[in-house]
Amino acid sequence: MRLTKLFTKTGRSTNDEIRAVSHALLIKAGFIHQEMAGVYTLLPLGVRVLNKINNLVRREMDIIGGQEVLMPILQPKDNWLKTGRWKNFDVLFKLKSNHSKTEYALGPTHEEIAIPLVKSFLSSYKSLPFAIYQIQTKFRDEKRAKSGIIRGREFGMKDMYSFHENQEDLHLFYNEVKDSYLKIFKECGIEAKVTKASGGDFSDKHSHEFMAISEAGEDLILACKRCSYAENSEISNLKEGDSCPECKNEISAYKSIEIGNIFDLSDKFSKDFNLEYIDKDGHKKMPVSGCYGLGTTRLIGSIVENSHDEAGIIWPKSIAPFEIHLISLDGAEKESEKIYQELISREVEVLYDDRQDKGAGEKFNDADLIGIPLRVVVSKKTIDKDSLEVKERSSKKEKIVPIKDFLERYE
Amino acid sequence: MRLTKLFTKTGRSTNDEIRAVSHALLIKAGFIHQEMAGVYTLLPLGVRVLNKINNLVRREMDIIGGQEVLMPILQPKDNWLKTGRWKNFDVLFKLKSNHSKTEYALGPTHEEIAIPLVKSFLSSYKSLPFAIYQIQTKFRDEKRAKSGIIRGREFGMKDMYSFHENQEDLHLFYNEVKDSYLKIFKECGIEAKVTKASGGDFSDKHSHEFMAISEAGEDLILACKRCSYAENSEISNLKEGDSCPECKNEISAYKSIEIGNIFDLSDKFSKDFNLEYIDKDGHKKMPVSGCYGLGTTRLIGSIVENSHDEAGIIWPKSIAPFEIHLISLDGAEKESEKIYQELISREVEVLYDDRQDKGAGEKFNDADLIGIPLRVVVSKKTIDKDSLEVKERSSKKEKIVPIKDFLERYE
Repeated sequence: MRLTKLFTKTGRSTNDEIRAVSHALLIKAGFIHQEMAGVYTLLPLGVRVLNKINNLVRREMDIIGGQEVLMPILQPKDNWLKTGRWKNFDVLFKLKSNHSKTEYALGPTHEEIAIPLVKSFLSSYKSLPFAIYQIQTKFRDEKRAKSGIIRGREFGMKDMYSFHENQEDLHLFYNEVKDSYLKIFKECGIEAKVTKASGGDFSDKHSHEFMAISEAGEDLILACKRCSYAENSEISNLKEGDSCPECKNEISAYKSIEIGNIFDLSDKFSKDFNLEYIDKDGHKKMPVSGCYGLGTTRLIGSIVENSHDEAGIIWPKSIAPFEIHLISLDGAEKESEKIYQELISREVEVLYDDRQDKGAGEKFNDADLIGIPLRVVVSKKTIDKDSLEVKERSSKKEKIVPIKDFLERYE
Repeated sequence: MRLTKLFTKTGRSTNDEIRAVSHALLIKAGFIHQEMAGVYTLLPLGVRVLNKINNLVRREMDIIGGQEVLMPILQPKDNWLKTGRWKNFDVLFKLKSNHSKTEYALGPTHEEIAIPLVKSFLSSYKSLPFAIYQIQTKFRDEKRAKSGIIRGREFGMKDMYSFHENQEDLHLFYNEVKDSYLKIFKECGIEAKVTKASGGDFSDKHSHEFMAISEAGEDLILACKRCSYAENSEISNLKEGDSCPECKNEISAYKSIEIGNIFDLSDKFSKDFNLEYIDKDGHKKMPVSGCYGLGTTRLIGSIVENSHDEAGIIWPKSIAPFEIHLISLDGAEKESEKIYQELISREVEVLYDDRQDKGAGEKFNDADLIGIPLRVVVSKKTIDKDSLEVKERSSKKEKIVPIKDFLERYE
């Protein structure tokens, strides 16, 4: 992609109401555009990151046996009445058809679709266990939406629902998802804290939240300074300085962003929809289920909160919008163009700063702001030595590398 | 994917109100599940087809220089007031926040977001031309929604918006999109008719619709029996038997499904949002724009309308949910399993019928119904000859192929 063709520009400023660093950086670097409070457009750079996150999440959910579906955003009121959430779910967006009396909920979560859907196919214990997931847009009528894409009214989410014969089997899968989430977050550069939290209105069990420690977070957790133990302050009796229940080390309080959560739903929704199957002995039984959320657009914000410096974003390789940020400086246009063509012919993802009306300083600043892992500069000085200059975004050191050697890396 | 793990089942029937063959087949074969009129869940087989269509469309839009974005579904009322469509767009879903007086439209199309978005970045003629596109869910409060996923209230769409200095330049891009669409539809097995149609309320120019001839279609077109000339009956003065304006051959009437459309918007939306740029001579000018829609979920239905027989669906290779439908028959379980493992280790997409409680007849029927391009059967008879039986879905002829030769195809 050529920067001269990209319709967006860097340098846009945000309004003062926004506190999150990630929000300012994502707007300034041209990843997102705010349409109204809590509602964003993902710009070309932002879509590339989201598509990579979605593919990473899809790959990992497939590995643990998840079956991808796509459930609707428009959901029938009746299903929400059955679970009692038409009235009790305080951030539910509701709407009516103009032509008929049909009322809809705009899906903030999908138990009201997933459970009846499974009911229409499940008959025997032989089909259990299984899990279905989707990557879908969700809607929540949040009272305040001031942390950029960390808390949107419209946002991307992967949600999964699993179905089991018994709690032991649910427990096994629950732990597989836990490991899978930690792997995903690690690939995004985030060491998430698995945090005990409330199980919701319908359960006295704990759920687990995946927390990314960050000043932009709206949650407060009590976490061990040494081991991985953590509790959400909403349910915790721990205090700062306390002794960790697991390793007796010191407990500290951290602001954090909830980037994932997993719930043991037990048979709550099976009961609401009378979801049954025939067990080994020919008896009717209700499956137990789990639900597993992972905020995909929120994750973009959390990654930036977690990985930036004063100059801009530092993307982890796995989800960076491009692999290489190629900069052409005065007098090296022809050679840069050749290197760009060589790279894209090898299917390397390159953002090519081919602007001729900008100086080196502005180009370097934009590269730091956008945060692509590898910056490659071609100038008169480097081509005199048949070389180019390579710098990792996360490092301060440049290296001069022969063009031939550099291109060989991508063969 | 193992059929024993797939949570869906074949054989479900549809209600009588539905007339489209594609609808019945997609439900019976387990690709879609109806949640309510015009609202569907895409099941695992259906999601695989949709993801492939989306990737095909994305690839082709990238080739002609489209820049992918993701605009929101929730759209501000103000923008719709500016274009006069808050009142005039008869299938617009509207909703209100519970907490504030904010009113939203649920995007049925995205000019109301795309034009203001471009306004916030466009300054100079140097940026023109460019085009942005997205693959997004759309909502239309249709009065009747009875043709399955061919006319949904919630549906998938690729929409693109292009911006140009003048009509000549718009015209060039418009024709590029036309060719790109024909290429996409051809890859899906559809020879679409490019049909002259109304330009909408705001234009006396024609738009072009891409029509797939089908009994399930809700449009009627007058098309030449020999050349590619076609007009929508809504604007046409042609009659059946008439002489084609281009080649003088006979004109016939066909029911058809609109799977794409392209509009010359001229400066209609530029005016609504006062979208301007500075031209070469330093003067303020308004760009002209085009808009280009392609229905992705509707395309699934159209493909099935276009490509099936009495036994089921016949998927074109490029967008089939799997490459191979592998069937294990009694006594060949071990060998089938080995072939399955060999194939998936080579990243071949295989749907594996490993059910042990179903007979050959039922397995063959399901394979025909689901419609994967290549059926591969492993039985006692074939393994006695170190072979397997291969049959293309579109053909009636089976071939016995040595296992070794077959696997070599996928190396």
